[in-house]
Amino acid sequence: MRSISVLGATGSIGASTLDLIRRNREQWRVVALTANGNAAELAALAREFSAETAVVADEACLPTLRESLSGTATRAEAGSAALIEAAARPVDVTVAAIVGCAGLAPTMAAIGQGNTVALANKEALVSAGEVMTAAVARTGATLLPVDSEHNAIFQVLDARQADKISKLILTASGGPFFGRTRDQLRGVTVEQALKHPNWTMGAKITIDSATLANKGLELIEAAILFDMPPDRIDVVIHPQSVIHSLVEYADGSSLAQLGTPDMRVPISYCLGWPDRVAWDAPKLDLKKVGNLSFSEPDTEAFPMLRLAREALENDLCGVFNAANEVCVQAFLDKRIDFLQIAEFVEMAMMRAQLPSMASLRHASRDRTVDNMNIALDIDSGVRELVGGFVSDTRQGVQAS
Amino acid sequence: MRSISVLGATGSIGASTLDLIRRNREQWRVVALTANGNAAELAALAREFSAETAVVADEACLPTLRESLSGTATRAEAGSAALIEAAARPVDVTVAAIVGCAGLAPTMAAIGQGNTVALANKEALVSAGEVMTAAVARTGATLLPVDSEHNAIFQVLDARQADKISKLILTASGGPFFGRTRDQLRGVTVEQALKHPNWTMGAKITIDSATLANKGLELIEAAILFDMPPDRIDVVIHPQSVIHSLVEYADGSSLAQLGTPDMRVPISYCLGWPDRVAWDAPKLDLKKVGNLSFSEPDTEAFPMLRLAREALENDLCGVFNAANEVCVQAFLDKRIDFLQIAEFVEMAMMRAQLPSMASLRHASRDRTVDNMNIALDIDSGVRELVGGFVSDTRQGVQAS
Repeated sequence: MRSISVLGATGSIGASTLDLIRRNREQWRVVALTANGNAAELAALAREFSAETAVVADEACLPTLRESLSGTATRAEAGSAALIEAAARPVDVTVAAIVGCAGLAPTMAAIGQGNTVALANKEALVSAGEVMTAAVARTGATLLPVDSEHNAIFQVLDARQADKISKLILTASGGPFFGRTRDQLRGVTVEQALKHPNWTMGAKITIDSATLANKGLELIEAAILFDMPPDRIDVVIHPQSVIHSLVEYADGSSLAQLGTPDMRVPISYCLGWPDRVAWDAPKLDLKKVGNLSFSEPDTEAFPMLRLAREALENDLCGVFNAANEVCVQAFLDKRIDFLQIAEFVEMAMMRAQLPSMASLRHASRDRTVDNMNIALDIDSGVRELVGGFVSDTRQGVQAS
Repeated sequence: MRSISVLGATGSIGASTLDLIRRNREQWRVVALTANGNAAELAALAREFSAETAVVADEACLPTLRESLSGTATRAEAGSAALIEAAARPVDVTVAAIVGCAGLAPTMAAIGQGNTVALANKEALVSAGEVMTAAVARTGATLLPVDSEHNAIFQVLDARQADKISKLILTASGGPFFGRTRDQLRGVTVEQALKHPNWTMGAKITIDSATLANKGLELIEAAILFDMPPDRIDVVIHPQSVIHSLVEYADGSSLAQLGTPDMRVPISYCLGWPDRVAWDAPKLDLKKVGNLSFSEPDTEAFPMLRLAREALENDLCGVFNAANEVCVQAFLDKRIDFLQIAEFVEMAMMRAQLPSMASLRHASRDRTVDNMNIALDIDSGVRELVGGFVSDTRQGVQAS
């Protein structure tokens, strides 16, 4: 019997994880489940899985959570300190699936206990990459990538032959607006952007897929996780999302992981690692798929991919991520236009390079202990900055 | 410095192997090079690579070979005994690339010396599968598959997770006649059949690709090499020959090796194994390839794939292979029509199942020492039988 905590249990990754646990109830003991504010759903899950602890980040939700869990053995807690405390409880596997930079502190707490962390929270890694990898090295924790692309790479990357890797190739569906020109992206609505062609995911990542910011974040994530220079990480548009990514070796072989677009596949790989788990997974049928296509990303229509590369080269990954988080929320709230997401991120990155803005840079390169707080300071600094852009232009936004 | 022998040095696989050795001259000592009858080419290669021994199978070619090698330190020999003796010389790697069942005895001799054998001679494995795998087990030799499909599977097959493999998926280009109906295959010429769309290979294997017999042989080869029941080996038509094959796991992940269609890629993997060898290998560019397609094989137009499966299920692999070898040669000699290849192979398989034909069956299941000779007896018995079909119908053949 193995123990597990799920940070972000009510989100899309959390639901997929618990679906897998549900198929193997007797093999797993659920320690902590956490959520941001959905106390009712969290309580239902905590009941179903007899979780030891349930934590809501939003303290206002604590009464609902306590009430919903009355009569159970589950301890109900709330607030960021409780979240971190729950994440720090020793378990065999922690699924770190809180969306955004908000997941950084709990993920760091999970790494701190030194066991296996299945990382779905790419924003935290992007904001504080070297802080996180340094913590992994220090604690002996194992970081397994949940993202389908990095999970694919992890599955076919032979660490003993690392010096023979010539390239990592991330595939990108291209999102709902693949094929559109920049002009054709003017005025696209939130509803249109939320319709991903292949994957069912949360709102933040779905918008990120529509702007290609998601692939930008993944580019940064790959550079950090696999210690690979950006010029050896390629992105190829592959609308069918069947080849999840590839590792190209210097001997002419490229290895790839393929599968139907179902997040439970990479999650199950993380839950069982280093063994594979047999379950009634949906199987890929290439004859039915029929056709796989590949093309160059259009960085004029989708500048976020170019900006991510620039962020990586100029140590502005935290800026890129924070600015994007603010802009995506503003777009979801219909406060800015689709194209403004990239425009504001680029403005933030330009501003952060001004000498007077030194406090917004360089968190990720310095491996001191306080780095997580520096990363969080940068995050809040950029949020304020980009929040300013958003407010300034509210009147100019097209209603959708 | 590692030592190597190449059995079948003047063929297509031999040439690709020596091209790789040429790029790394200082790392390899060439022990034996063998050929069937091309003494001039063999002598030239033996000179270039300072081979210790050069052997032609055809004794009539010995004078030419001796003359061409005069003044060198290379020993020139001829005949099947000399071939076997050369194959038995201890080396780090033997590339077994003799075409057809003629390669069985030399390949067995190479396995006998207990080192690494890179096996390109699929007919030998098909004719005497369990004889060969038993010899591998007995001598501790390592058998590495050169065939691009099996090499692909070998690269992504995690032996520690063998119980989690749900399927092996062999890809097939479909050959030059992909998409044609049975009617459209009537009267196709040798010249048309020799034009493979993707791979540059020898005549035998190119015809086998046109009939799909090659994929049938590979199906049998995969069943033997990876100890997998035939119903868990699938074949999918993939005209671009970019995904070389896949392993499907029970957790929903399929792993694949991809690359440009160049036999040096799998050969270099065998030469370096367990390490990868960095060389200026042609790299796969999916953006340039643009499109990969997949479909069900048409076993009505191309019955050889169905017949191979039946051979595997009924222990008639040796019959399937020998009948095919005779028919391909007869087709190349313009003595039979393209469609007659499969017809005669099917006739041979039916005959071999008659009670009176017991001597043509069952070699591969019995692991006694004499088995190689039984396999060879079956081979010659089937050759005689199918030779009879060919003679009987010579007058009926359409001139091409």
